[in-house]
Amino acid sequence: RLKEELNSEQPANVAEYFEELTAEKQLFVFRLLTKDMAAEVFSYMDSDTQEHIVHSITDREVRNIVDEMFLDDTVDFLEEAPANLVKKILRNTDAETRKLINRFLNYPENSAGSLMTIEFVRLHSSMTVGNAMKQIKRTGTDKETIYTCYVIDDQRKLIGVVPLRTLICAADDNTIDELMQDDVVSVLTTDDQEEVANIFKKYNWMALPVTDTEGRLVGIITVDDIVDVIEQETTEDMEKMAALIPSDEEYLKTPVMVLAKNRIVWLSVLMISGTLSSFVIGHFNSLLEVAVVLSGFIPIITGTGGNAGSQASTMIIRGMALGEIEIRDALKVVWKEIRVGVLCGVALGLINILKMTLVNRDTGFWINFSVSLSMAAVVVLAKTIGCLLPILAKSLKLDPAMMAGPLISTVVDAVALVIYFSIATALVL
Amino acid sequence: RLKEELNSEQPANVAEYFEELTAEKQLFVFRLLTKDMAAEVFSYMDSDTQEHIVHSITDREVRNIVDEMFLDDTVDFLEEAPANLVKKILRNTDAETRKLINRFLNYPENSAGSLMTIEFVRLHSSMTVGNAMKQIKRTGTDKETIYTCYVIDDQRKLIGVVPLRTLICAADDNTIDELMQDDVVSVLTTDDQEEVANIFKKYNWMALPVTDTEGRLVGIITVDDIVDVIEQETTEDMEKMAALIPSDEEYLKTPVMVLAKNRIVWLSVLMISGTLSSFVIGHFNSLLEVAVVLSGFIPIITGTGGNAGSQASTMIIRGMALGEIEIRDALKVVWKEIRVGVLCGVALGLINILKMTLVNRDTGFWINFSVSLSMAAVVVLAKTIGCLLPILAKSLKLDPAMMAGPLISTVVDAVALVIYFSIATALVL
Ligand SMILES: [Mg+2]
Ligand SMILES: [Mg+2]
Ligand SMILES: [Mg+2]
Ligand SMILES: [Mg+2]
Ligand SMILES: [Mg+2]
Ligand SMILES: [Mg+2]
Ligand SMILES: [Mg+2]
Ligand SMILES: [Mg+2]
Ligand SMILES: [Mg+2]
Ligand SMILES: [Mg+2]
Ligand SMILES: [Mg+2]
Ligand SMILES: [Mg+2]
Ligand SMILES: [Mg+2]
Repeated sequence: RLKEELNSEQPANVAEYFEELTAEKQLFVFRLLTKDMAAEVFSYMDSDTQEHIVHSITDREVRNIVDEMFLDDTVDFLEEAPANLVKKILRNTDAETRKLINRFLNYPENSAGSLMTIEFVRLHSSMTVGNAMKQIKRTGTDKETIYTCYVIDDQRKLIGVVPLRTLICAADDNTIDELMQDDVVSVLTTDDQEEVANIFKKYNWMALPVTDTEGRLVGIITVDDIVDVIEQETTEDMEKMAALIPSDEEYLKTPVMVLAKNRIVWLSVLMISGTLSSFVIGHFNSLLEVAVVLSGFIPIITGTGGNAGSQASTMIIRGMALGEIEIRDALKVVWKEIRVGVLCGVALGLINILKMTLVNRDTGFWINFSVSLSMAAVVVLAKTIGCLLPILAKSLKLDPAMMAGPLISTVVDAVALVIYFSIATALVL
Repeated sequence: RLKEELNSEQPANVAEYFEELTAEKQLFVFRLLTKDMAAEVFSYMDSDTQEHIVHSITDREVRNIVDEMFLDDTVDFLEEAPANLVKKILRNTDAETRKLINRFLNYPENSAGSLMTIEFVRLHSSMTVGNAMKQIKRTGTDKETIYTCYVIDDQRKLIGVVPLRTLICAADDNTIDELMQDDVVSVLTTDDQEEVANIFKKYNWMALPVTDTEGRLVGIITVDDIVDVIEQETTEDMEKMAALIPSDEEYLKTPVMVLAKNRIVWLSVLMISGTLSSFVIGHFNSLLEVAVVLSGFIPIITGTGGNAGSQASTMIIRGMALGEIEIRDALKVVWKEIRVGVLCGVALGLINILKMTLVNRDTGFWINFSVSLSMAAVVVLAKTIGCLLPILAKSLKLDPAMMAGPLISTVVDAVALVIYFSIATALVL
């Protein structure tokens, strides 16, 4: 009864259920699944469970799974698996599949090649709709998708694409040639997954063909895998924006040593760069000796500057990632940020002088005014720096995501202190 | 010739091409498009171009577009459009469509109802595959998708789902009843789009049915719209993480006043909270008067603390957004962050004492040691605060994304200064 229930469930749910089971139970339950279902459920499992299963089952069972799985999911598993399991998989595949798998494993990480799969519908342009439908009916269950069909010539070159919907709505004696769209958008195996995701976003497609450099159709990428790519690319951006070395691993499964390693690099780079701020303060030591009360406003000025800069840089970084802001918009952006900066700066300056008058009773007008004026000036400068650095990074072909909060704050800190102490020297001394 | 070329292009490309044209040219080119193509291109245009077009064309042309467009795209346009254009659209639709549109406009923003469309394939369970295929053949071109078909009973209740692939691979005299999956995952019109997106991510589906509270099937959501939702939700998170009030508007199209307004709120809240740091420093004024050199390390200590805290909070916020970290993992997370904090803290402390010995020649050992020890302690505390606040926010049903860099830095600043000055008082005075 459990068996029946399992096999009629959604594969994703069954895979989720496995994560609650003990290791022995996992194996027991896995063996209740039909061949088809086992392969599907396997492709939804997390890598720990996958590894445990492959480790425990017989060679014959391995063969069954690999036979049924889509190649992209097999390759995904192999990319992460330890060497002994990779061997166990490879010795249970026929020579041809083994060659194919090895080719797929060689595509660069995050390339179109590493996302694609080979189970798609290939049609010839001379076929009639009736024959095409017969072919799809016969082979359809083994394809990743049958809803977009690709047309190739005798050299296996991609020459057209035809949605299944068109075939269904057409007469049986039409030829594929008459129905296919011959102006096909495709990507190369070596194209970056981010570009691939952008194509999906633009055209709202379900699948995209991948060709080699000679234009031969070698695979397709489906939108479900692109959804994962989008999540992965955004996580990478967020991690870079927080001065982390990005990692694909789930947080709870990443060892403490690895987490620490991914953080220490940027933390120390930024800490060492922070020495600049110390120098600025050191330079104004005599000012501070006379008016030590000024040091009380260092964190509030650098902090607000950092926040103002992060706001600007985040908007620009995200706008660039979404393709809404290009390098050629630099001037427009800077001009916009200066105006936004002035508005924010004036507002904050006014709020601050009001607050200081009410709260900081031991500071006189000129100190309150110096702090507030500095606040306004720092905000304008922070906004400008915050929007300029990501654009600069992009034009140097660096990742703009790096130019976010932490780095901007470090730069703004030093600039803010120079402004603050210069204004204070002029007004307070 | 231009006409032919346009009508055989990808609609998304044609829509892109419109953005380069002048207002009059847009109208001219738009009128070269066939009815079908015009509607498709229209749904890919940005809202400015859409508004210009609707504004300029005749009522008859409006009718043609609205007739051809999928309802979700019409509603998307209407949600943003100025009142006169909404009127122009509504007076060119029949009473039934108008009622439908009004119902759709009433679904809460970011709900499943506001994402769904009504052009889907409805089958009855008693139908044979042959009849179902005939129905699909007849009506297929007007559906948003025909690749997933939904089965309803006489009360229009959703009772099953069947992929087109199953129909194609089945014999003509099978009934839908025998083929459909009757254990259907669906969402309610009022469900949040984020939950809807999570279902798509989990099951890798192309479409998801939407029902009302009585279980009647009222629409479907397709994956292409979910891709946009995912981008939108992530942008929202990033904006919140940078202390911005989130906005759906594109940066370059947002007026300066709106940008400033979205930034000033958090900037001033955080600036005012920064007063706490001023108080801490004020409290240690006598220490600073004796050893003014200590003030030189305020930015480097608070800055590093802020960075260390942002790293932790970003990982936790993102992990929660991806469903990898739950509230119940709180203890595991904190324990992990404390260990990571100790590793990072010790490393940074050591690097710092080395750096100060080499660079800051006017400070003695005890000052160098105080700064470095504070650095280490601050990093551990920042990591702990950085991981705790997002978890706390989530358990209070607030958005964890708010507990990121800027807010964490402000909290860490005050704590860092207490630690720093207490250590310095003990060691230097
Ligand atoms: Mg798959
Ligand atoms: Mg892969
Ligand atoms: Mg799209
Ligand atoms: Mg796949
Ligand atoms: Mg990338
Ligand atoms: Mg990137
Ligand atoms: Mg800071
Ligand atoms: Mg649509
Ligand atoms: Mg909508
Ligand atoms: Mg998925
Ligand atoms: Mg849609
Ligand atoms: Mg939301
Ligand atoms: Mg959210």
